[in-house]
Amino acid sequence: MALSTMFTELFGLRHPIALAPMGGSAGGALASAVSNGGGLGLLGGGYGDLDWLARELPIVAESTGKPWGVGFLSWAIDVGAVERALEWNPRAVMLSFGDPTPFAERVREAGAALIIQVIDAEEARQAVDLGADVIVAQGTEAGGHGARRGRSTLSFVPVVVDLVAPVPVLAAGGIADGRGVAAALALGAAGALVGTRFQATAEALVDPSVTKAIIEGRGEDTERSRVLDIARGSSWPSEYTARTLGHPFLDQWRGREAELAADPQAKQAYHESVERGEIPPLPVWAGEGIDLINDLPSAADLVGRMAKEAEDALVRAGSASSMRRPGE
Amino acid sequence: MALSTMFTELFGLRHPIALAPMGGSAGGALASAVSNGGGLGLLGGGYGDLDWLARELPIVAESTGKPWGVGFLSWAIDVGAVERALEWNPRAVMLSFGDPTPFAERVREAGAALIIQVIDAEEARQAVDLGADVIVAQGTEAGGHGARRGRSTLSFVPVVVDLVAPVPVLAAGGIADGRGVAAALALGAAGALVGTRFQATAEALVDPSVTKAIIEGRGEDTERSRVLDIARGSSWPSEYTARTLGHPFLDQWRGREAELAADPQAKQAYHESVERGEIPPLPVWAGEGIDLINDLPSAADLVGRMAKEAEDALVRAGSASSMRRPGE
Ligand SMILES: Cc1cc2nc3c(=O)[nH]c(=O)nc-3n(C[C@H](O)[C@H](O)[C@H](O)COP(=O)(O)O)c2cc1C
Ligand SMILES: Cc1cc2nc3c(=O)[nH]c(=O)nc-3n(C[C@H](O)[C@H](O)[C@H](O)COP(=O)(O)O)c2cc1C
Repeated sequence: MALSTMFTELFGLRHPIALAPMGGSAGGALASAVSNGGGLGLLGGGYGDLDWLARELPIVAESTGKPWGVGFLSWAIDVGAVERALEWNPRAVMLSFGDPTPFAERVREAGAALIIQVIDAEEARQAVDLGADVIVAQGTEAGGHGARRGRSTLSFVPVVVDLVAPVPVLAAGGIADGRGVAAALALGAAGALVGTRFQATAEALVDPSVTKAIIEGRGEDTERSRVLDIARGSSWPSEYTARTLGHPFLDQWRGREAELAADPQAKQAYHESVERGEIPPLPVWAGEGIDLINDLPSAADLVGRMAKEAEDALVRAGSASSMRRPGE
Repeated sequence: MALSTMFTELFGLRHPIALAPMGGSAGGALASAVSNGGGLGLLGGGYGDLDWLARELPIVAESTGKPWGVGFLSWAIDVGAVERALEWNPRAVMLSFGDPTPFAERVREAGAALIIQVIDAEEARQAVDLGADVIVAQGTEAGGHGARRGRSTLSFVPVVVDLVAPVPVLAAGGIADGRGVAAALALGAAGALVGTRFQATAEALVDPSVTKAIIEGRGEDTERSRVLDIARGSSWPSEYTARTLGHPFLDQWRGREAELAADPQAKQAYHESVERGEIPPLPVWAGEGIDLINDLPSAADLVGRMAKEAEDALVRAGSASSMRRPGE
């Protein structure tokens, strides 16, 4: 048994599950493990660091014969990073956050599928105009960066599905087990794009303290904010917040973002705390689905398990109908 | 065909859909229409106003032979309101927001099913301890009041399902069409509790301007806040915000709740604006699902339509599996 959708058919995948191209943590080993497990592995090209790409691209290209891709942050990259990725013949390039226009044509020319992640209806329309082959609708449950004032996955996905049909949509945000994948399909999506859950896999490029925090953390401990981006001097544009686990700087500066931005001493204090080892060098980016994350599987096994759970969930949800006699 | 779940079996319903007991707007006509349409109609007993109950209880009791119920706000009522409702033999009493302990035993003694709406894991555990027959897991997408710092429906529902099993769970928040109902079932819920969508039905007790605002509004126009509760002098406890459509007072006071609370002139200005007809007497409570609301059907038809859409969504999502030849 397998769940077949427009997304699985487009890439010839066994399962309607994509790895979110988590900047830095979705390296070549994780991307190829997801592809080998029957999903679509997307390398986390992030800000387009050429050294990182030079190290990780060969790993994914050489360790899977299945389709894989690379993701980038549109606001952060220049076309050189995309060119570098295209040299390795990815089946897909995903563009998120910011204007994808400068890169879309180049991706399509190279024959790679164009995947665009969107956070509102306007971006969804733009993605169709740019010829996106797949559109990812991201809800505010998502770990990492996203819309400052966004929409929840459950109500946003069907809106995007209706708006962009017949372009296939992936649901992203808060999906951490097969029930979430099944819900995505029920909402009309052609699959799920999953981030946080894959940070707790054997192949993720994350510090063991991050894995531990994700396995132990609870959804109500996560929070969307700009505070940590400001404190660490990140150049993320102000229309994006990031969902992270709790952090002493969040408690200290919540609601006072403008003040923090104008306070060089506070930012200095952040860096000194990092140097002294009091706070980790990076926030723990995590989505609301972390309650459902309790183990550290290999990514390929996880893809298979989530797909199986999704099939079971759909059978359980739908099959009662046929078991009831008519008229009953 | 029909979707059978622990919830439909408990009450002998045709469809796994409950009307949210929206205080004031879910009157006897709406509750009975939902029950007659095959769902579970719940009267919006709200703050336990005895005159309102005396008017609406006979309407629902006399216009449906199907199971129906009444909902109350635990923080606002005294046991007299529950007694009054029980005189009409509802099949269920639903308690939301605040401590249900003082009323739970009385409901069970009377032989009515006890439904408790919860906004976090702790409340879910308490609901099990109190012997709830059904637990409603409310996500932050929901229209009207809810957790100030809550969880999204998609990731909260499976957590509650696991925590309270085998007690059946209804998903609430952001569900406005059959795809949402299907997603609820895929997440492991036994049905959906739907509020905002039923405000735009022929039977809802709402001003036509509210219906119009809901049909025209967009999900990104809704916002959770305490501002309007403070401005209108409502006694809702401070741990709850309400999701409403945009409002001039929201723009004016967002982020300055404490200041507003301490400013009698501002509250006076609110009431004067209402009297001059510049702002409506009540906020328009609406959830993130409003993008999906584009018409004004009768509630009974709507229940049937949503159920049919849910069945179709589950068949579409799940059936591809059986259509694919093995090994393909
Ligand atoms: C650690 C982390 C890093 C992320 N980095 C990126 C990124 O570089 N580019 C991108 O498009 N999305 C990034 N995302 C967001 C994902 O694309 C996706 O929207 C999100 O992970 C989905 O929600 P989930 O984490 O609840 O599964 C990141 C997410 C996480 C958790
Ligand atoms: C206008 C309105 C009034 C509401 N009043 C109540 C209420 O009195 N008691 C209650 O338990 N829930 C109330 N709710 C919340 C619902 O129980 C439910 O959680 C919510 O409507 C589900 O989200 P949805 O509106 O997106 O369907 C109300 C919701 C709305 C929209």
